[in-house]
Amino acid sequence: MKQSLDVLLACNAPKGEAFLDEIAGKNPLFICTIATTETGKIPGLSAAGANPDFTDFTPPADAELLLLGRCKSIQGVPITPDGIPTPALISTSALHLADIPVLIVNGGVKVKPQIPFVDLGGNSGRDIRSGDSVDNVDEVIERAKILGENLAKAADYLVIGESIPGGTTTALGVLSALGVNAAGKVSSTLPENPHSLKSEVVKAGLAAAKEKFGSLSKNPIKAISCVGDPMMPALAGLVIGGARQAPVLMAGGTQMSAILALIKALNPEALCNVAVGTTRWVANDKSSDIKGIVNQVCDVPVLVADLNFGGSEFPGLQIYETGLVKEGVGAGGACIAAMAKRGGAITRDMILKEIERNYALLMGIK
Amino acid sequence: MKQSLDVLLACNAPKGEAFLDEIAGKNPLFICTIATTETGKIPGLSAAGANPDFTDFTPPADAELLLLGRCKSIQGVPITPDGIPTPALISTSALHLADIPVLIVNGGVKVKPQIPFVDLGGNSGRDIRSGDSVDNVDEVIERAKILGENLAKAADYLVIGESIPGGTTTALGVLSALGVNAAGKVSSTLPENPHSLKSEVVKAGLAAAKEKFGSLSKNPIKAISCVGDPMMPALAGLVIGGARQAPVLMAGGTQMSAILALIKALNPEALCNVAVGTTRWVANDKSSDIKGIVNQVCDVPVLVADLNFGGSEFPGLQIYETGLVKEGVGAGGACIAAMAKRGGAITRDMILKEIERNYALLMGIK
Repeated sequence: MKQSLDVLLACNAPKGEAFLDEIAGKNPLFICTIATTETGKIPGLSAAGANPDFTDFTPPADAELLLLGRCKSIQGVPITPDGIPTPALISTSALHLADIPVLIVNGGVKVKPQIPFVDLGGNSGRDIRSGDSVDNVDEVIERAKILGENLAKAADYLVIGESIPGGTTTALGVLSALGVNAAGKVSSTLPENPHSLKSEVVKAGLAAAKEKFGSLSKNPIKAISCVGDPMMPALAGLVIGGARQAPVLMAGGTQMSAILALIKALNPEALCNVAVGTTRWVANDKSSDIKGIVNQVCDVPVLVADLNFGGSEFPGLQIYETGLVKEGVGAGGACIAAMAKRGGAITRDMILKEIERNYALLMGIK
Repeated sequence: MKQSLDVLLACNAPKGEAFLDEIAGKNPLFICTIATTETGKIPGLSAAGANPDFTDFTPPADAELLLLGRCKSIQGVPITPDGIPTPALISTSALHLADIPVLIVNGGVKVKPQIPFVDLGGNSGRDIRSGDSVDNVDEVIERAKILGENLAKAADYLVIGESIPGGTTTALGVLSALGVNAAGKVSSTLPENPHSLKSEVVKAGLAAAKEKFGSLSKNPIKAISCVGDPMMPALAGLVIGGARQAPVLMAGGTQMSAILALIKALNPEALCNVAVGTTRWVANDKSSDIKGIVNQVCDVPVLVADLNFGGSEFPGLQIYETGLVKEGVGAGGACIAAMAKRGGAITRDMILKEIERNYALLMGIK
C-alpha cells in the first residue's frame, strides 16, 4: 500500500516502511500542542506572525483554524511578514479530507484559543537569554504522559504537531544543552535562516543558566527549564505516554529532533514506537539538516510528505517551493496521516486542491 | 451477547437492547464532566463532600481518582458526611478492569484538578436562588459540541458522566423551567431526599429570574443561565456533538433527564443516538423517579447496571444497598461500558472485587 503513497523515507528507511505499514488504513487522532515564548519575539528570529508581538496570536489562531476551519482570535489566518499563510492551512486541509479528529493541547500560551483545549498547567515561556525560560516542566510532562496514554487507548494512533513561534531557536537551545551538535542545522520560516543569531541567543541562555554545551545531557528537565520552551514538556510527555499504547507520529521539522533527544534522556523505550513526519521542504532544505540531527540522537525513522505546490495557481502557495515556512502545525505529518488513512485515495494533488480551496476562501480571493 | 451482561433495561427496552448490541465489544472513551455551583453549598442539599465547603474539592478529587487511581487535591477520597466513599471508586474500578481511557472536561470548577483536563471557557456556578447561575452558556455549548464531535471520531463511542455536588437541585431547576414535572422525582445522595428544600430553592430561583414552570421551554440556554449549573452546557454540548459521529451513553441518574430535556430543546435529532446508563440503586429508588422524568421528555432507553454490594465484606460499600449515594461520576455507565466491552468476561461480581481492592487500598483498610 505504501508504494502508492506520496511519502518518502529520509532516515532509517526500513523502520519507516514498517511504520507506514502499521498505520495504513488506521484512524489517528491529530493533536496540536500550542505554546508561546518571549524568545519568539527577538527581532529577526521567527516569521510565524506578521510582526514579533503578533506571534502571541499565531498558536491560538492556528488551533482555531484546525478545529473550526477559520480563526477567531485574528482576522484571516496567521501570515509571515511576506504574506505567506500559516502551514496550519495544509494540516487543516489534509485532516478535513481524511476526516481525522483534532484535539488541541495547551503547553503554555499567552492568548488562549477560543475553542476547547486541554490544559496541562503550563505557562507561556520567557526569553531563553534569561537562562530560566519554562516553569513547571516536570509536572507538565507527567500530566502530558497521562493524557497521551489515555488518548492513545481511544484512537488507533496519535499524530502530534506543534505551533510555537521561535521554536527552532529553543530547539537549538535544548539540543545544545543535551550535547547534540545542531548549530547551523535547525530549520527556519524565514527566507534567510538566521543561524548566527540563533547560536548567539542560545549561547547567552546557556551562559545565564551557568551551563554549557552538553552539560545537561543527563538532566533533560533542567535543559527545558533553562533554554527550552513550553511546547516541549507537553509534546515529550504526550509522546512518551502515547507510545506505551499505540504508534506515535511526531509531526514537525527540526524541532522534533529536540523532542527526540529529550525522550531519549527521559524514557528511551518510547522511541521504539515513534516516527517523525515532516515535509519535503524540510527534508530537502539546504539551510538546515534534520537528518544530521536525528541520526546523532537515535534511529527513529523520518517520513516525508512529498508535497509540491509548484503547480498551484496561487503565488502565496507556490512560494512554499522556494523554501519559505516549510513546515509547522504538523503539516507534513497531517498529510502523511491523511494519505495513510485512505491509501491511494488521497494524493498530494488532492491535498493541494483542498488547500487551494481553503486558501481562496480564507484569504477572500476570487 | 447482552443476555450475559449484568445490565437491566428500565425504559424503552427494545431501543435499549439495540443500543447494547451496538456497543458490544466496542472501545469507548469515558468522559467525566466536572463543575461546581454555590447551590451545592446550601445546607441540607447535597452529601457530595464531608461538609458544604468541601464540595469545591469533590469534582477535582473525583477527576484525579479516575485518571490516577488516587486523589491529589485531598487526602483519601471524597466521602459523604456519613463516611460513604465517592461513586468515582466504582467508575475507576470498572474502567480500569476494562482498560477504558478517560478524559476530564471542565464545565466550570472553583478548584482545578491536578491532572490534564479540557477547558471550555466555563466558570463555577452561582446559587440558583439568584436566578442568574451560569455564565457563558452558549459559548460553552458550542465548544463542547466541537470537542464531542472530534472525540467521537477517535473512539468507537462515548460514555459521559458528571461530578457536581448539588446537581439534582439544578436538574430540578432546569426541568421545571423547561416544563417537565420533576418535583419529588429527582434523586439524592442523602439518606432522606430533601425534596421540599429542593423545590423551595428552585421556586426562589425561578422567581428571582422572573420565570415560572415551563416559561423557558423554548429557551434552554436561558434555563441553564438562570437556574442550571455549569456541568449542563458542557455535557449537553458533548452529547450533541458526539452523537453526530457515534453512539453516546449518558452516564448518570436523574440529572441526565435534565440534559435530555435540554438536548430535546436544542438539537432533538441527537437523541436518536443516545442512551442513559445508571445504577440499580437509582432505577429502583423509591424517593425518586428517573423513568417518570425520562418518559415525559423522550423515548431514549435507560440501561441499568445491576450492581449489588450486599455481599461486600466492607460496611462502607454494603451501605450502597440502603440507597445512599446511589450514583455519580458515571458509575452506572462506566460499569455498563466495561461489561459491554468485554462481554461476559467482566461481571458485576468482578467489578465489586476490584472496587473492594481499591477501597481497601485508598481508605488504608487492612
